[in-house]
Amino acid sequence: MSAETFTLASGGQLPAIGLGLWKLEDEKLGPIVRRAIELGYRHFDSACDYGNEPAFGAALEQSLADGLCKREDLWITSKLWNTYHAPEHVRPAIERTLSDLKLDSLDLYLIHFPIAQQFVPFDKRYPPGWFFDPEADEPAMEFDATPLHETWAAMESLVDAGLTRHIGVCNYNTALLHDLMNYARIRPDVLQVELHPLLTQERLVRFARERDITVTAFSPLGSPSYVPLGMAGEGESLLDHSTVKEIAARHSKSPAQVLLRWGVQRGTAVIPKTSNPERLEEDFAIFDFELTADQMQRIAELNQNRRFNDPGTFCEDAFNTFCPIYD
Amino acid sequence: MSAETFTLASGGQLPAIGLGLWKLEDEKLGPIVRRAIELGYRHFDSACDYGNEPAFGAALEQSLADGLCKREDLWITSKLWNTYHAPEHVRPAIERTLSDLKLDSLDLYLIHFPIAQQFVPFDKRYPPGWFFDPEADEPAMEFDATPLHETWAAMESLVDAGLTRHIGVCNYNTALLHDLMNYARIRPDVLQVELHPLLTQERLVRFARERDITVTAFSPLGSPSYVPLGMAGEGESLLDHSTVKEIAARHSKSPAQVLLRWGVQRGTAVIPKTSNPERLEEDFAIFDFELTADQMQRIAELNQNRRFNDPGTFCEDAFNTFCPIYD
Repeated sequence: MSAETFTLASGGQLPAIGLGLWKLEDEKLGPIVRRAIELGYRHFDSACDYGNEPAFGAALEQSLADGLCKREDLWITSKLWNTYHAPEHVRPAIERTLSDLKLDSLDLYLIHFPIAQQFVPFDKRYPPGWFFDPEADEPAMEFDATPLHETWAAMESLVDAGLTRHIGVCNYNTALLHDLMNYARIRPDVLQVELHPLLTQERLVRFARERDITVTAFSPLGSPSYVPLGMAGEGESLLDHSTVKEIAARHSKSPAQVLLRWGVQRGTAVIPKTSNPERLEEDFAIFDFELTADQMQRIAELNQNRRFNDPGTFCEDAFNTFCPIYD
Repeated sequence: MSAETFTLASGGQLPAIGLGLWKLEDEKLGPIVRRAIELGYRHFDSACDYGNEPAFGAALEQSLADGLCKREDLWITSKLWNTYHAPEHVRPAIERTLSDLKLDSLDLYLIHFPIAQQFVPFDKRYPPGWFFDPEADEPAMEFDATPLHETWAAMESLVDAGLTRHIGVCNYNTALLHDLMNYARIRPDVLQVELHPLLTQERLVRFARERDITVTAFSPLGSPSYVPLGMAGEGESLLDHSTVKEIAARHSKSPAQVLLRWGVQRGTAVIPKTSNPERLEEDFAIFDFELTADQMQRIAELNQNRRFNDPGTFCEDAFNTFCPIYD
């Protein structure tokens, strides 16, 4: 089976499903990436901040050497970390990512958050994370005064230099996107945000679509990644939701497959994470059924504007810094 | 009685209560502005878009000529309309406002919305409103590609030129403010947003305070301005809310006074609108009582994130254009 793709404004084909690499531990990452490629996954969602780009690069290199697929068949996304927003750090940041991934260029490079943090030298700490100095008496985030339009201009120069084919942003809201579209020489092809039936963000998705920006949904299954981090309650599971389970039963599919299908069918790419080979296979098998309009609507009505990944909450809880971006 | 003031980051004193001039008809505006000055109001919140700056200017001129107060005792705010975001239109826009108001300079000039619309020549239509061409077959908004940082630089040049003492923004969210603080040479002194107990925006207010931006609450009474426009339901009145009424009774004050006091006591200036002389006097009498911490909290707990003034809704309903800025 091969995945559907979305055609980007500038012409690339973004596979509708990708494997998200956040929180995948090095020792599990190699086998799961290899298995994913065998199953037909061609889209991988990486980031400097995930801390596992060397392991991902090794898995990619081996898989390509073994002839599982060709580089040009893969879609590799990575993300500029907050500490590299200053224009002079943007190119070194992608070069470090490319070196770790053992690639000449990315398919997509995204600004990870609209938050510029103080630079941390590469040889001091990598990835640098959220704290400016984790060893300080009272560690906290430190901001950098680089405006987003300067970072974007540096991102554009990466396309000019052939280091990435496409650029985009994560965690932007409509107002930031509107402004970005007004200063972009090379327009953003992709917006990546948290999207699942508890956080449907109808207006943001519609706004992006009307501006020809393709949307990728992170955390398309909702809470699972956040429960172990204390950022979601056990009772917030969409996989256990009666509506989702009922619709899944009607299609002889799993709740996860229904959630992913819902995401793809509304026109967003989805990038679920798993280190479980069975779930990996299950997640990919979403192109052989279709939800009815009524089912799409019933799932959308589960919306509670429930955002699990909110810097306005977690930066204060975990990094001693009040840093709202969605308020 | 004189009103309390808030000290701005750059040193000015913003009176905690002002008269909002939105929707005040020309014939009512003169008498109510004059009466306001007699009662002790020193802060007036105007805007090009309100369409009544000539009437306001005439009232100001007469009041000053009659010696009701001195110009330097007044705080006059106006706002840059969306069609004048291009840098070359910013100075002509404030000059038109100053001409209408018969003033040499403003105390505060605000970007009205983070939405750049196509320029409409001054001699073609003034104020230009939301439609690009109201006479078109299918009138709609037309956007202009000026990024906010370019508009802001032009706003800064107005301070340099002595045309306004302070500059700021309206209807910005935390992400836009964060970016603005990173490109501002002259920092915004004031953020004006919709705030009342149904829309408390705790994080935005806190964020502004931590960045030394003074907040002005528009629509501090909530729904009243929006019911006639079909943007609020009759049942959404805070003036009729049992909690507000109960707290008002304990202080022998009116519900409106409690709502305004709540706004001021949480550190935000409030700019209620009225054309009724009794209400005008009532609105000003909020500096002779104090809400308890418990009462402040009980009122804050009425929050429902209910935004009445949302371009994401009204621009589509009234101006045939999907233009979300808070999503």
